[in-house]
Amino acid sequence: MSATAAILVIGNEILSGRTHDTNIHSIAGALTARGIVVAEARAVPDVEAVIVATVNELRGRYTYVFTTGGIGPTHDDITAACIAKAFGVTLHRDPLAVKMLEAHYEPGQLTEARLKMAEVPVGASLVENPVSRAPGFRMANVFTLAGVPRIAQAMMDNILPTLAEGPAIHAQTVSCTLGEGVIAEGLGAVQARYPDLSIGSYPYFRNGVLGVSLVTRGTDRSAVEAASREIAAMVEGLGGTALVVEGMA
Amino acid sequence: MSATAAILVIGNEILSGRTHDTNIHSIAGALTARGIVVAEARAVPDVEAVIVATVNELRGRYTYVFTTGGIGPTHDDITAACIAKAFGVTLHRDPLAVKMLEAHYEPGQLTEARLKMAEVPVGASLVENPVSRAPGFRMANVFTLAGVPRIAQAMMDNILPTLAEGPAIHAQTVSCTLGEGVIAEGLGAVQARYPDLSIGSYPYFRNGVLGVSLVTRGTDRSAVEAASREIAAMVEGLGGTALVVEGMA
Repeated sequence: MSATAAILVIGNEILSGRTHDTNIHSIAGALTARGIVVAEARAVPDVEAVIVATVNELRGRYTYVFTTGGIGPTHDDITAACIAKAFGVTLHRDPLAVKMLEAHYEPGQLTEARLKMAEVPVGASLVENPVSRAPGFRMANVFTLAGVPRIAQAMMDNILPTLAEGPAIHAQTVSCTLGEGVIAEGLGAVQARYPDLSIGSYPYFRNGVLGVSLVTRGTDRSAVEAASREIAAMVEGLGGTALVVEGMA
Repeated sequence: MSATAAILVIGNEILSGRTHDTNIHSIAGALTARGIVVAEARAVPDVEAVIVATVNELRGRYTYVFTTGGIGPTHDDITAACIAKAFGVTLHRDPLAVKMLEAHYEPGQLTEARLKMAEVPVGASLVENPVSRAPGFRMANVFTLAGVPRIAQAMMDNILPTLAEGPAIHAQTVSCTLGEGVIAEGLGAVQARYPDLSIGSYPYFRNGVLGVSLVTRGTDRSAVEAASREIAAMVEGLGGTALVVEGMA
């Protein structure tokens, strides 16, 4: 049984269309590469009741939950307080987090607002932030990361080695310029022969050419390779040219 | 009371990290511009039970639901069947949808697989697709769109004029290069004076300069402008330079 995960993006700026989230994509890729199945992703606004309820729903359902956003020093940064509330604990000022901030700011620059970034739920362990020092934290199976993508990724780099690693997921892509409607029947037949694999069909339009990427994924590498060979043969049999590459290209 | 909406992105490729979703961002922006409050966004895998349960949860909670992905001709395109199941109806081959496809494909090219794209839940009305003709559809308050961003956006263009328009949401941004930790206290005080407005603080790093965008949003334009003036004055009072621009810049 693989470990599962949910990603929870917190912030009005995502749902207003102001900010284009990139954390779902990068966190999902990092977890998938480690064999952890990302089962869902959500974006919610800066509303305490919504965040608390969503965290509690997701942490009960999945092995891991990763939140992004809302851990800065301003009034709209309420994630730490919400995680504490979800776990029924209070916030406290973590001495180690204060030390991290003291090392980063000039004397006199560590304002009371910035010290808010040292406040984490009682029982949480810190996740180091090599970019701007204000840490993320882990509370049981919930990891709370910054929203700034560069910082979120640096925090993930610190977290990944601590996670249960799932069976590696192998992927192979067959690319061709036949229409989806032409290959659909044959592709469905391959999927039916390999029920343990996941075969996806993703049309693309690149450099003026319409094509489709047929991606086979699964934990059994030889099955993935066999299914990909069958897909390539099917494409060639329909008069197409099949380009086979490793990964989810 | 404003209309509310949820966006539901359907597809394994988003959660595996293969594909970077852009539909949440563009749909959220289009709805916000129309005064419709996007209350949440989710991404779920191509799993029938998950899609059906999520559609039913969201359509009961919000004015509108917008799904993207899973309406092509291949075996992994199960969205139409899931929407039908969520509404307790069957799929049928819509004669108008067949006509749209017939007009698009050369004689003999309209395969049985492609005709699958004319199958919609009984009771659904079609949403035209000016790009590749295979339509989306509306079932009560649920709109089902293609996953290809260019097609999803074209479908949204057709849908937007049919939606209840909410009160216009005005936004103004004050940009400065002071740290969030420096302006946090003053910004929180402005937010406290304007409880009906939403004031967000979004740090950025551009051209080697670290700055922060302070975005005020609300339906009362004069209140938005007054709060922005107070934020700008606060920034200048702290020795910063405030750049004020319209919108969520």
